[in-house]
Amino acid sequence: MSNTETLFRLAGLNTEYASCIDADRLEEWPGLFLEQGRYRITTADNYRRGYAAGIIFADSRAMLTDRVASLREANIYERQKYRHIIGMPALRPGGTGEIAAETPFLVVRTMRDGRMDLFATGIYVDRICEDAGGALRFAERLVVCDSSRFDTLVAIPL
Amino acid sequence: MSNTETLFRLAGLNTEYASCIDADRLEEWPGLFLEQGRYRITTADNYRRGYAAGIIFADSRAMLTDRVASLREANIYERQKYRHIIGMPALRPGGTGEIAAETPFLVVRTMRDGRMDLFATGIYVDRICEDAGGALRFAERLVVCDSSRFDTLVAIPL
Amino acid sequence: MSNTETLFRLAGLNTEYASCIDADRLEEWPGLFLEQGRYRITTADNYRRGYAAGIIFADSRAMLTDRVASLREANIYERQKYRHIIGMPALRPGGTGEIAAETPFLVVRTMRDGRMDLFATGIYVDRICEDAGGALRFAERLVVCDSSRFDTLVAIPL
Repeated sequence: MSNTETLFRLAGLNTEYASCIDADRLEEWPGLFLEQGRYRITTADNYRRGYAAGIIFADSRAMLTDRVASLREANIYERQKYRHIIGMPALRPGGTGEIAAETPFLVVRTMRDGRMDLFATGIYVDRICEDAGGALRFAERLVVCDSSRFDTLVAIPL
Repeated sequence: MSNTETLFRLAGLNTEYASCIDADRLEEWPGLFLEQGRYRITTADNYRRGYAAGIIFADSRAMLTDRVASLREANIYERQKYRHIIGMPALRPGGTGEIAAETPFLVVRTMRDGRMDLFATGIYVDRICEDAGGALRFAERLVVCDSSRFDTLVAIPL
Repeated sequence: MSNTETLFRLAGLNTEYASCIDADRLEEWPGLFLEQGRYRITTADNYRRGYAAGIIFADSRAMLTDRVASLREANIYERQKYRHIIGMPALRPGGTGEIAAETPFLVVRTMRDGRMDLFATGIYVDRICEDAGGALRFAERLVVCDSSRFDTLVAIPL
C-alpha cells in the first residue's frame, strides 16, 4: 500500500468517525474500533508530561457501546450538536502491522438555540490496524486537547 | 475512475467553489453548477424532518447568476468576507452517472473592522456530474447548516 | 509527477509545517524553507492592492532561525498555543521548476488558562521547489490574513 493510498484510507476512516458523531449515528461509532480498541481523551499538558491516564477512558469496544447507551439516556443530543473538521493525517513511525498517525482536529458545538462555539481543538494520536475483513480500525485513539478546560458534562466523543 | 481519484477531483471542485466565494470571484461561482443545477440552503432540523424547501433556493445556473448580480448591487462584499474550510468528502450511494457525496464545512466571517466570527458549520449534500467537457459540476448542492439561526441578511453563498 | 501526487505531497508539507508550530518544534520550522526562502505575512487588503511589504518579513532561512530564537527568549509558547487547520491546496500556474499553490488555513489560539479564540484565517500563497534531496521546500510562503487586525505582539509563525 503506497503512502498516498494509506493517507487516503486514513482520511476516509476519519470522515466516517466524524460522520457517526456529527450526524448522530453514535451507535455506529464503536464499530470503528477493534474489539480491544482503546479510546482516551487527555490534555496537551498531560500528554507532554507523559501522564497517560486521561479524562475519559475506554479500553474495549464494549465500553464504548456502554458509553453511547449512557449518552442516549442523558439525551445529550437533544441539547447540542457537533461538527468535526479534521485535517490531513501525518504518518508516524509505528509498530509492525499497524499504522501510526497524528491528525489535527477542530470541533464546533451548536446549541439548541442556535449559538455556536469553538468547542475543542487538538490532535488525534492514533494506532490503526486492519481488521479481519481488511477494514481500517482504531487499535487506539488518543484525543489530545489543546485546552485544559473541559466542560465537566462532556461525555460526548471528540 | 478509482475512489481515490474521485475524492481528489471532488476535493478540487470544493477548493474551487470556496475560492470563488472567498476571493470575491463570485461571478465564476455559478459556472460550477450544471445549467439545471440546484442550490439550496437549509437547517439540520429541517433536513432531518425531510422538509426540502430550504431558505435560499435556485434551480438553475441562471438564477445563481441573478443572485450574484443582487449581491453586487447590495455591496455585500464591501462589508464582510468569508473563509471556507472544507473537509474531505465522503462518497455516498448515488444514481447512475452521478457521484453522491457529503462534505463537512466551516465558514468564518471577517468584518470590515477586523472582527472575526464563526459564521456557519454544516455539511454539503451533493450530487455531482461530469459536464460535456468532462469537468465535475454540481447537479445539486444542498447546504445543511448546523445552526437554525440565520443572519436574515445572508444572501451570500455558503 | 501527477497532479494527485503533487497535491498529496503539498498537503504533507503543510501538515509538517503546522506540526512544527503547533507541537512547539519551532526549531524545525525554518528547515521547511529553501536557504533563500521568503516568508511574509500580510493582509487581504494589502494583497489585493499589490502592497508587497507585509508585516513580518524574512528573506532567508537564517532570518527565520533568528526569529525562532527571539520567540524562545520571549517565552511566547509559555502563554499560548496554536492549532492550524489547513485545507487542500489549489494548484496555480507557476514558473519553471516550481509549484505554485494557494491553500486556505485557520488558526485557533488557546491561552494558558484554557480560553480559545479564532486567531487568524486566510490563505497561503506559495511557491514551492524540490531541494537537492528531492524534498519539497518553500521558495516563498506569503500568508494573506483575512483580518487586518493583528495582535501587535504576534511574532508567532502563522
